[in-house]
Amino acid sequence: MVNDNGDCKKWGFSANNEIESASGLTVRGVLNTLKNATNPEDERLTIPLGHGDPSAFPSFITAQVAEDAIVDSLRSSKFNGYSSTVGILPARRSIAEYLSRDLPYKLSPDDVFLTIGCTQAIEIAMMVFARPGANILLPRPGFPYYEACAGYRKLEYRHFDLSPDKGWEVDLEAVEALADENTVGMVIINPGNPCGSVYTYEHLKKVAETAKKLGILVIADEVYGHLTFGSNPFIPMGVFGSIAPVLTLGSISKRWMVPGWRIGWLVASDPNGVFKETKIVDSIISCLNISGDPATFIQAAIPQILEKTTDDFFNNAITILRNSAEFVYDQIKDIDCITCPHKPEGSMFVMVKFNSTLLEDINDDTEFCLQLAKEESLVILPGIAVGLKNWLRISFAVEPTSLQDGLLRLKAFCQRHAKK
Amino acid sequence: MVNDNGDCKKWGFSANNEIESASGLTVRGVLNTLKNATNPEDERLTIPLGHGDPSAFPSFITAQVAEDAIVDSLRSSKFNGYSSTVGILPARRSIAEYLSRDLPYKLSPDDVFLTIGCTQAIEIAMMVFARPGANILLPRPGFPYYEACAGYRKLEYRHFDLSPDKGWEVDLEAVEALADENTVGMVIINPGNPCGSVYTYEHLKKVAETAKKLGILVIADEVYGHLTFGSNPFIPMGVFGSIAPVLTLGSISKRWMVPGWRIGWLVASDPNGVFKETKIVDSIISCLNISGDPATFIQAAIPQILEKTTDDFFNNAITILRNSAEFVYDQIKDIDCITCPHKPEGSMFVMVKFNSTLLEDINDDTEFCLQLAKEESLVILPGIAVGLKNWLRISFAVEPTSLQDGLLRLKAFCQRHAKK
Repeated sequence: MVNDNGDCKKWGFSANNEIESASGLTVRGVLNTLKNATNPEDERLTIPLGHGDPSAFPSFITAQVAEDAIVDSLRSSKFNGYSSTVGILPARRSIAEYLSRDLPYKLSPDDVFLTIGCTQAIEIAMMVFARPGANILLPRPGFPYYEACAGYRKLEYRHFDLSPDKGWEVDLEAVEALADENTVGMVIINPGNPCGSVYTYEHLKKVAETAKKLGILVIADEVYGHLTFGSNPFIPMGVFGSIAPVLTLGSISKRWMVPGWRIGWLVASDPNGVFKETKIVDSIISCLNISGDPATFIQAAIPQILEKTTDDFFNNAITILRNSAEFVYDQIKDIDCITCPHKPEGSMFVMVKFNSTLLEDINDDTEFCLQLAKEESLVILPGIAVGLKNWLRISFAVEPTSLQDGLLRLKAFCQRHAKK
Repeated sequence: MVNDNGDCKKWGFSANNEIESASGLTVRGVLNTLKNATNPEDERLTIPLGHGDPSAFPSFITAQVAEDAIVDSLRSSKFNGYSSTVGILPARRSIAEYLSRDLPYKLSPDDVFLTIGCTQAIEIAMMVFARPGANILLPRPGFPYYEACAGYRKLEYRHFDLSPDKGWEVDLEAVEALADENTVGMVIINPGNPCGSVYTYEHLKKVAETAKKLGILVIADEVYGHLTFGSNPFIPMGVFGSIAPVLTLGSISKRWMVPGWRIGWLVASDPNGVFKETKIVDSIISCLNISGDPATFIQAAIPQILEKTTDDFFNNAITILRNSAEFVYDQIKDIDCITCPHKPEGSMFVMVKFNSTLLEDINDDTEFCLQLAKEESLVILPGIAVGLKNWLRISFAVEPTSLQDGLLRLKAFCQRHAKK
């Protein structure tokens, strides 16, 4: 800016660098960079295997009843106003009933807090526990929005590893070694993002027992809940809520293929009432008081969406995801520089190991993904973005024909760059 | 929680007290308390003169075209997926055009960032400028969400007074006295919440010149933009963006009577490009990367909403608000313990002074509002909640018949408690 004299004027404000570093951690930030790297002169459509959003593809259009529920709610003109802090009661009641179907106890509407998608549930969870000196244990690989939200709120995070050769289970010995008297909780993501893993009843029970031993809570990110297609069924962490208190995070985003509707929940799966006793529930409400709400008419559609969507819709999506997961798993066997340690059984992703030494001119996962975007208009997430360097996260939740095309491009790229 | 031995177990987490104090500052927190204070045995409906949300009343149902725009967008099935960080382009383009109509320069879509209502625009603004040591100047009375968001992010805030005897204009001498080398900006809310004031061209120009002199930006909260019904027309602060850079916050919430739709904007009204040069634009994008988005299909409806809503709809709302403001202003003249220094000319509120010495058994505004809620099922906001003790903020944006009823209850209450 120039002032009246034509000189550069000094304004008394400047950018906040802390934010930029937090934002650099997000998947969204990395994907934006990759999308910008694609060649605008490539006449082929960009194939987005970088994120978990199949909503634009014909095979994954949401259920008609879900759409109808929104229209009914909007047309009633009754839900144009502000919501209450915790979300409107009919929506909370219906989510409590929906989740209670899979639990050995019954949730009350007062256990349920509506959020703007699962991401706001993550924000609120990090906000609630971010007292000075506290730390939280996060999975590696994981979902970096946790790191971004914790980091911005000065909540220290420590990483425990997931074991690729044990179906990406939590390394519980590492968890015990990491925890100290300032540890407040641990996060698990099941079904797994980025790993496509689905934990067994036994493993989840051990997670709860470890948390109990350490005196910490479990934050269970179940945004991919019910999206399973292998031998392990989906077991909500809340099943073990009487062993250690569980904060369950979820959403209709993935199961209904509507991530853009921005509605999710944060639920106290805590039959012993630890969160009430320790005033965590009050703190959640306080956080929600200084945060935004999901659109009220979308909240009002929740009961109809949860109650009226038929199994046809879910089964169809699961069938496509199962076939797509198998297709990717098989195709990758033909690519020398990529190996998959564990066939995905849930969510929309597979994590694969990348061996740069087999390529001529590509040194790591970031270079691989950037070059792939440039040459093939194919977006895949570098593992470094989810905490594992020289791995790749591939989403298979796209139209099957696009997936086939994407794998052809990936193969061609790897062959072109292979050491001769 | 009890452990296996039946003892009370100590869990390694506790509530975050900082949040509770930030949350205690919000209007929402205070209104929740008042609503809970109403007598459930009172058969009369509670009359909500506490907040600015008339959407539930028949006289304030939103425009049919706005509703249709949402349905069209949803039914297209094209907007169920994630939005981009800054919001989808057609919405940003249309907001740029909408706001440019009243500016001496043309905004570009890149100047516009979509937010989850105006409240998220406030959050982002506080986030961007919250570097250590910085301070921001806020109006008193004001909208306490600013204090809550700044406080939570450790951005120091200092209050300048608005002058009731000068139409609630900003005391610019106080602004100059408060500012120092760490001041980053000042906030103005025009049309005024809580005062119902509408600033003149001359006053806004002086605000910009003061900001320029101090080297600070102006955050212009225009969520009540165009809701004016007195002699001063609505002038956007952005008109003076070439004097000092302006961050304009707005929303369709109030003008279209849809606060529950949760869509708003944060706009760089800054023809000299100061925000780009000082990397503030990058910082806004980084903040949005670690924050939620408005629902994508609601974003997609914005062009149709902004372009197709006819003047009939706006004029009708303005006529009702004008009549209601006059009605309240006249009725209050009959109440001894309440006086109004300035007839409201915009927004949905009037600020009135409360004189407790004329009442028998009520000592301040908080007691007054609590007792009023209990005895009359009438909710009015105590001035302390917006920074002025022993004032009251009355919303007149309700169904006119409810407003009449509300004023009768208010009169009866004041007479009953008056000193004999």
